[in-house]
Amino acid sequence: MKKYSQVYSYYKELIDNGQIKSGDKLPSIREAATVFSVSKTTIQNAYFDLQSDGYIISQPKSGYYVSDIQISNIPYSADVKTKNICKFDLKSGDADSKCFDLKLWQRYIKSALRQEERYTSYSEAQGEADLRNALAAYIKEKRNVITSPDRIVIGAGVNYLLSVLCSLIRHSGFNAKTVSFPTESFINGISVFEDYGFEAHIRDKNADIIYVSPSHMTSYGDVMPIKRRLELIKHSEIKNSLIIEDDYDSDFVYLSKPTPSLYALSGNRNVIYMGSFSNVLLPSIRISYMVLNDELKEVFDMRREFYSQTAGKTEQIALCQYIRDGRIKAQTRKIRRIYLNKTKVLYEMIKAEIPSVKCSVAENGLMLKLTAQFSKQLDVFEKNDLSVYIQSYDGTTLKLVLIPSAVDFEQLKEAVNALKSALL
Amino acid sequence: MKKYSQVYSYYKELIDNGQIKSGDKLPSIREAATVFSVSKTTIQNAYFDLQSDGYIISQPKSGYYVSDIQISNIPYSADVKTKNICKFDLKSGDADSKCFDLKLWQRYIKSALRQEERYTSYSEAQGEADLRNALAAYIKEKRNVITSPDRIVIGAGVNYLLSVLCSLIRHSGFNAKTVSFPTESFINGISVFEDYGFEAHIRDKNADIIYVSPSHMTSYGDVMPIKRRLELIKHSEIKNSLIIEDDYDSDFVYLSKPTPSLYALSGNRNVIYMGSFSNVLLPSIRISYMVLNDELKEVFDMRREFYSQTAGKTEQIALCQYIRDGRIKAQTRKIRRIYLNKTKVLYEMIKAEIPSVKCSVAENGLMLKLTAQFSKQLDVFEKNDLSVYIQSYDGTTLKLVLIPSAVDFEQLKEAVNALKSALL
Repeated sequence: MKKYSQVYSYYKELIDNGQIKSGDKLPSIREAATVFSVSKTTIQNAYFDLQSDGYIISQPKSGYYVSDIQISNIPYSADVKTKNICKFDLKSGDADSKCFDLKLWQRYIKSALRQEERYTSYSEAQGEADLRNALAAYIKEKRNVITSPDRIVIGAGVNYLLSVLCSLIRHSGFNAKTVSFPTESFINGISVFEDYGFEAHIRDKNADIIYVSPSHMTSYGDVMPIKRRLELIKHSEIKNSLIIEDDYDSDFVYLSKPTPSLYALSGNRNVIYMGSFSNVLLPSIRISYMVLNDELKEVFDMRREFYSQTAGKTEQIALCQYIRDGRIKAQTRKIRRIYLNKTKVLYEMIKAEIPSVKCSVAENGLMLKLTAQFSKQLDVFEKNDLSVYIQSYDGTTLKLVLIPSAVDFEQLKEAVNALKSALL
Repeated sequence: MKKYSQVYSYYKELIDNGQIKSGDKLPSIREAATVFSVSKTTIQNAYFDLQSDGYIISQPKSGYYVSDIQISNIPYSADVKTKNICKFDLKSGDADSKCFDLKLWQRYIKSALRQEERYTSYSEAQGEADLRNALAAYIKEKRNVITSPDRIVIGAGVNYLLSVLCSLIRHSGFNAKTVSFPTESFINGISVFEDYGFEAHIRDKNADIIYVSPSHMTSYGDVMPIKRRLELIKHSEIKNSLIIEDDYDSDFVYLSKPTPSLYALSGNRNVIYMGSFSNVLLPSIRISYMVLNDELKEVFDMRREFYSQTAGKTEQIALCQYIRDGRIKAQTRKIRRIYLNKTKVLYEMIKAEIPSVKCSVAENGLMLKLTAQFSKQLDVFEKNDLSVYIQSYDGTTLKLVLIPSAVDFEQLKEAVNALKSALL
């Protein structure tokens, strides 16, 4: 064990055991250095981390004191509204954080921190130039989306980018009034467009703007077939409408072969391509990007000063290198394998344990569709610690969608048992 | 020197000197470990950093190769539009990055990275709870803004928060149509409101929403006097209008004593308080916050799912501890002292070197106002490598505003000489 860790652990234990208490003063850095026979820097580092972890506090010109741990531990979760978090989350489709090598990502962050000269300037409104270069190469290889990096705009989340896009459209020559979404479940996107004064319709092919998510058309994972893609592009060219292609989940589509992006099919005359990394990396890494067409790129250039960058510089620098090193591709392969496997295992278990329900794997391979005869109250799922997506219920027939990505492999069996007692 | 650094420097030098060239293969990690008599981990770390710094690239299943340095160096700045950057920036009021202890901040970031369990969940739309707690305590002490942390919303930049605010207002019972700004120079704020369909006016006290920046009312640094603050609050209460108080630069106001915030004066019946850290920390750290009133807080709670967090989690965690440790206060004191001093020195130099111009220190102590007889072309400033704010010019009398914060102390003399040859 390193000297530094010894000092850290020594005080941490004293505090944890209550041998020194809230308000007690720690020896000065000089005193402690003598006692432990280590350098003052070592003590400083240990105190710093004790402080960061909430064990002690520093009073300028006075010294270090044991903090009121209970107070310093509470804030993190105290006033967060307690969400109804069920043990088995078969609804969110969130990432399984166990699949992500956080240590490796942290190394990229630390390496990014060393590019000191880059931190003293404002962020580029459009996003860091090297990340845009890396993204251009990445989406060209992955989705045949061919673009110059200067048409890419980076931002913290697809929602934020949609608001930039709304603003760009409003300032362009394109007099758009209506926007179409595939289903009502795209509440966030609908909300952004409505806030900007657009009228949102559902599946309206005559809308001025058509928002599609070809690899995730509905909440039960339907993929848009190639024929429909070509029709959509042709129609939009005739009607002179703008397509927003949110390529969410395209990485995970497998049963149907990865279909070409609308962007690639159309030659980007009227397609805005959007992508994000939160479901391949960590949900807390909020970096998304969009590829503008020529017209909106011109508007962006003219109005550049009105938009500010929301994605953090450190994470942008880290992500750039992460992509260049091929880590994104490796990570995508890894979680695709794991998620597909989970879905398969869940499918087999349900077939074996609850044979009375109809069960099928959704087209994207990541979800199950269930149909069951059912006559209980719908809160029976929550009572059984299950979070599920209820697609429809008419009093006798219940249709569910289950997405196992966020559930641990080891808990799938238990989740199926909970589902069984909820349904039967 | 550490083993790791020796390996790193060894290869870095070979590459810098051209002794090994683009495309050359490096020894495998195992071979290098033998050659240097160090562990494989040491080699791995060194290779990792050579890679991050663009010296080498990794080809999966093949090995490490010297990269085309020229290529890997270009992307960072290649397609960033070359801005007209003058040597002496007396216009932007940007932070002097030399005053910021980047190393210290990096330690807070690294410490934040260790809170691993916090990275696997989505970010709170409202911002991290512990940062909101720390902010509540901080603005109470600093500006007597008393609020519960659950009325604070965090986001990446004031601009982004204004767009959230516009959306909240649109979904509230408050039927606002017009917004007033102090001057036309608030282009970003005006643009956000216009995008959301509001009508923007200048200094219209009858507008439904009144945006003010009491410590920075105009581009020449006027501070709103206490009498005017009280009038504004009274008027807004009678008219039932909403005040947005952007407390930009309040930290730096000194000549007039820090005036109380509008929020504190009004008891927050109708004031939204906004603050940010980019001019105290680094411009690339994009964390801002706003304090909602009860009505808009209710709207936020109902529509929580429509907003997403744009500020990075790591920086939020780091900033929380940075505030708790009193670092923000220390940093504010430090740069206030330095900026005021720069302004004073610049003032004295101009008095001595260019006695023919009228020069005075602006009310906030951070800017100079200059009036000069002038008959040249206005591009003479750019030609003299000066970036200045031209307040007015009628062909004979020129009014300038100079903000020296971003200029190095050592360069002030040179800047004054450039100013002299531009003016005379």
